[in-house]
Amino acid sequence: MNENKIYTAEIIAVGTELLLGNTANTDAMYISQGLSELGINVYFHTVVGDNPVRLKSAVQIARERADIIITTGGLGPTYDDLTKQTLAECFGKKLIFFEDEAERIKNYFTKHLHSRSITENNMQQAMLPEGCTVFRNERGTAPGCAFESDGKHVIMLPGPPRECGSMFKNESIPYLKKLSACEILSHNIHIFGMGESAVEDKLRGLMVSLSNPTLAPYAKEGEVNLRLTAMAENSEQAESLMSPVLAEVCRILGDVIYGVDVDSLEGVVLDLLKSKGLTLATAESCTGGLLSKRLTDIPGASSVFSGGVIAYSNDVKTAILGVDADLIREKGAVSAEVAIAMAEGAANRLNADIAVGITGIAGPATNLSQKEPGIVFIALKTPEKTECRSFHLGLDRYRTRIMSAGYALDMIRRALS
Amino acid sequence: MNENKIYTAEIIAVGTELLLGNTANTDAMYISQGLSELGINVYFHTVVGDNPVRLKSAVQIARERADIIITTGGLGPTYDDLTKQTLAECFGKKLIFFEDEAERIKNYFTKHLHSRSITENNMQQAMLPEGCTVFRNERGTAPGCAFESDGKHVIMLPGPPRECGSMFKNESIPYLKKLSACEILSHNIHIFGMGESAVEDKLRGLMVSLSNPTLAPYAKEGEVNLRLTAMAENSEQAESLMSPVLAEVCRILGDVIYGVDVDSLEGVVLDLLKSKGLTLATAESCTGGLLSKRLTDIPGASSVFSGGVIAYSNDVKTAILGVDADLIREKGAVSAEVAIAMAEGAANRLNADIAVGITGIAGPATNLSQKEPGIVFIALKTPEKTECRSFHLGLDRYRTRIMSAGYALDMIRRALS
Repeated sequence: MNENKIYTAEIIAVGTELLLGNTANTDAMYISQGLSELGINVYFHTVVGDNPVRLKSAVQIARERADIIITTGGLGPTYDDLTKQTLAECFGKKLIFFEDEAERIKNYFTKHLHSRSITENNMQQAMLPEGCTVFRNERGTAPGCAFESDGKHVIMLPGPPRECGSMFKNESIPYLKKLSACEILSHNIHIFGMGESAVEDKLRGLMVSLSNPTLAPYAKEGEVNLRLTAMAENSEQAESLMSPVLAEVCRILGDVIYGVDVDSLEGVVLDLLKSKGLTLATAESCTGGLLSKRLTDIPGASSVFSGGVIAYSNDVKTAILGVDADLIREKGAVSAEVAIAMAEGAANRLNADIAVGITGIAGPATNLSQKEPGIVFIALKTPEKTECRSFHLGLDRYRTRIMSAGYALDMIRRALS
Repeated sequence: MNENKIYTAEIIAVGTELLLGNTANTDAMYISQGLSELGINVYFHTVVGDNPVRLKSAVQIARERADIIITTGGLGPTYDDLTKQTLAECFGKKLIFFEDEAERIKNYFTKHLHSRSITENNMQQAMLPEGCTVFRNERGTAPGCAFESDGKHVIMLPGPPRECGSMFKNESIPYLKKLSACEILSHNIHIFGMGESAVEDKLRGLMVSLSNPTLAPYAKEGEVNLRLTAMAENSEQAESLMSPVLAEVCRILGDVIYGVDVDSLEGVVLDLLKSKGLTLATAESCTGGLLSKRLTDIPGASSVFSGGVIAYSNDVKTAILGVDADLIREKGAVSAEVAIAMAEGAANRLNADIAVGITGIAGPATNLSQKEPGIVFIALKTPEKTECRSFHLGLDRYRTRIMSAGYALDMIRRALS
């Protein structure tokens, strides 16, 4: 334990599939989030292929510029999984057979993978650096581990994101917490409906004046997050450093803040519905199920989400939601009137307290309408009233859909807040 | 131009937000895919923060181990955007003012961002290294560029994925193609319903015997891709090297291959529907809109996708899809009988030729049913027949939903193939 030291870490992801662009390095993202919350500075990520010479060179560079080296990947049973051998060699450790881990791997095969038979290679996974702390893998066969050598800490985690994530959270974080006695706390302030540069403009004076806590904005798929971080001797001191700043940020930004330390806008909406005992239904055209998908990503959505209708064709709008065919002909499928009729139809037919109707042109191709791609009408029906807003969301199909779902959620949030 | 040289590239992503775990490095993924198709080897990715000293050290390391350095990020108008200054300094280039780019930036503001006013900082974006090739930004203000120095090529791209992606595709790829005269071609073989290790087992003999073309499997969210790559003097020679291997792979793997060089399983399903002139409707319970969302991610889905019903509650199953309430009581909402009734109800009520019904328990929490989380029933109604399959997809909500949507798409594909 070292009370005052601020540690730096480097994450080395091992896997040729990352260098070929078959997958994004989400392990590094997840681990970086956790390290940031522990107050450990991450200055570099490196990705290297399943090649021992290049991995060795990456490790040599990392040990010069970081106190903690965290590797992901290359712990599997196949011939190109070389992380343990290479790291052990770099730090002069021998790999030895861990009896307990071998037993656990055998049990994992019997319990979870009954259709597959265990191979000699799988037993190689029980070979770990001498004297290491073994990290159990709850979601796969490859154990991870941590060891210290010459004042450097090495942590090895498996590559598959589910295995890496749970092992980092359950095994690595407790290991890392023991390294530092200083308390770092963060609050995340979540914003929808204001762009990053506008948020920065409004907060520049405050941000520049701060040193502890710090305040930093990050753009996130149609949203902005602000992270407020304080470092102190204990958590009460950290909180008391942050609370006036948090209050000031809330005062400046107002109701574009949809939550502090919440998981997601959809999560906030579901919680509001639960607390008020209201049910929700959706009627989606251009978003094609994206709004419902986001709501049902969250476990327990079923207690307030009745369901939805994806009314992609006009026939479905009429047959299932009861939207007047004449209204569609007269006003166009992409119109405020039809959005309202969709919301009302959904509330009615799906017997929900609140309903949202979305109709728009996601683009890029359109021969159905004179209306420009990116125009979207979102109607919200609550027990009190029905409102409709229109949005011009640009030419990109992906962005139009994401933003439409976001605005729909935000309209529900505002109506219920 | 250098006819025989195989170039190596390193991607340096610049952005503190990546090191804080606020976003994944998807730019590197996208660029790596493109480089791999050009036959350029990527041996390292590096991520570094908005810090000129550390960026400089990363560039010094990269120039020792790569021929081409591609940076992403740090081209914005704010004070912490330092990529151009730092790279220019590393390679002894002066930044000069590009009149044309300044004009273009002004026009972009007028045309796309009419609500915002242009600042002095934005004009800094027109400062670029002397003698560089300017890369136009179609989706934002920051231009990119490329220059050569001491036999090294430096390419700088903006960080936002949409800007980076379009500039890489439209400007960098043509620039890089001029560097090499050797032709590299790839085919991507897409597999659903067989795990990566099973694919490897079946193909091991073939994979080991090959050197040009090469064949490599990559796992991808519930799917496996095989990339077949050949290098030759021209594209005909490359194709003739690949065609017997492609035939052999198809013979060995059979109908788990859903396509070669296709975009996605949902795209294949939509194309099959279009070619047969059939319409599709969906009735989703546990997937909550995910299947419909995937179908409507694709432009033009509306010509064959009628719509869907997200029947999250039993009431909606009965009211909208016409599933017999007694049947639900008797067999349970998660049953083959209810899946079939959902598919038939969707075909009927949404007036579609083909319909799919999905009911299952995505988990993790459940108090509704004796059935275990991860069990899913998928029914498919076609003009000829109705079938239902059951799947045990494990305990993870995310995976259960992704795989359920995948199996539903694959059932449609098999029925139409």
